[in-house]
Amino acid sequence: MDITQFVAGSIGQWKSQRSAHHMIFGHFEAVRSEIDIVTLTPDNPAVIELCQAYEIDPSQAVSPFQMSWEGESDWDEKEVLKGSTVLVPIPDPNHPNRGLLLRDRGYAETMAAAAKYHITEDCVFVLITEYDRAAAEERIWFVNPNLRFRVSTIKTSDGTGVVTASFSSELREMSKS
Amino acid sequence: MDITQFVAGSIGQWKSQRSAHHMIFGHFEAVRSEIDIVTLTPDNPAVIELCQAYEIDPSQAVSPFQMSWEGESDWDEKEVLKGSTVLVPIPDPNHPNRGLLLRDRGYAETMAAAAKYHITEDCVFVLITEYDRAAAEERIWFVNPNLRFRVSTIKTSDGTGVVTASFSSELREMSKS
Repeated sequence: MDITQFVAGSIGQWKSQRSAHHMIFGHFEAVRSEIDIVTLTPDNPAVIELCQAYEIDPSQAVSPFQMSWEGESDWDEKEVLKGSTVLVPIPDPNHPNRGLLLRDRGYAETMAAAAKYHITEDCVFVLITEYDRAAAEERIWFVNPNLRFRVSTIKTSDGTGVVTASFSSELREMSKS
Repeated sequence: MDITQFVAGSIGQWKSQRSAHHMIFGHFEAVRSEIDIVTLTPDNPAVIELCQAYEIDPSQAVSPFQMSWEGESDWDEKEVLKGSTVLVPIPDPNHPNRGLLLRDRGYAETMAAAAKYHITEDCVFVLITEYDRAAAEERIWFVNPNLRFRVSTIKTSDGTGVVTASFSSELREMSKS
């Protein structure tokens, strides 16, 4: 599986159940959300701007896409979790299953972030984002074409402590039209 | 990683948080439990008996172990989830990273079960158990020596429908002595 196939399989509307385990106190959090993933054309201004911010030639971008989400957590039912981000894969020319994933903002940040990805032989997409004081690892795989799993961990940046572990099951919404 | 290393890394006491996603209705379930994994010697009568039940020479058994658990679910707080099972790996002589895992009973069954395992290049232990009307897949990996993740899916036996997906984070209990 390469990044083009991975992105192609991800396009669509997904109904997500996410469980977060806050490890230190053993808390559980449940989040329900709708996720919408759409393709972007390589000449989309947001794609070009993001490449330029990282001084990368936009012609190296492959399968750019946009992800939007809207959901709610059982921790704070008043708060609506809502956002959207542009994602641009930049495959490593020497290792087709590795590369960078540019993102115009992270889930919890307002800053742009460049993460490293690789796809394992077992077809798991692994994404590692390093922040100043923490690192995030995501492992995403397809159970079948209509069901995607995502396991995320947030670690302290020295790698010793896992602060949060979370699991999402994302079920493709059947077309309403 | 081979089965001996995988079992050796698993020995100990673990505090588990498990989240189950019941896919059809989108329900969440939270389970807390204590898991205790101990080595068994190859001449343990339970190991020999289990091999004999499957007509396997007990000399083929590698790193047999016993797993016990006790916990509670937020679905039924009165019910105590408690059990213990003997597990006996039988590696495939031609493929050291594959084999059978004999078990004297499943999590939810009172019947013995023989599951197929393999360990991926990415060090994920994958276990597939086929029942009459369903199939279970477990993927277990170490995030660090003191943290194990486990993703389980229960599918209908024709493989089309995923009924339940669950995620466990298992944190090693530090010695109390």
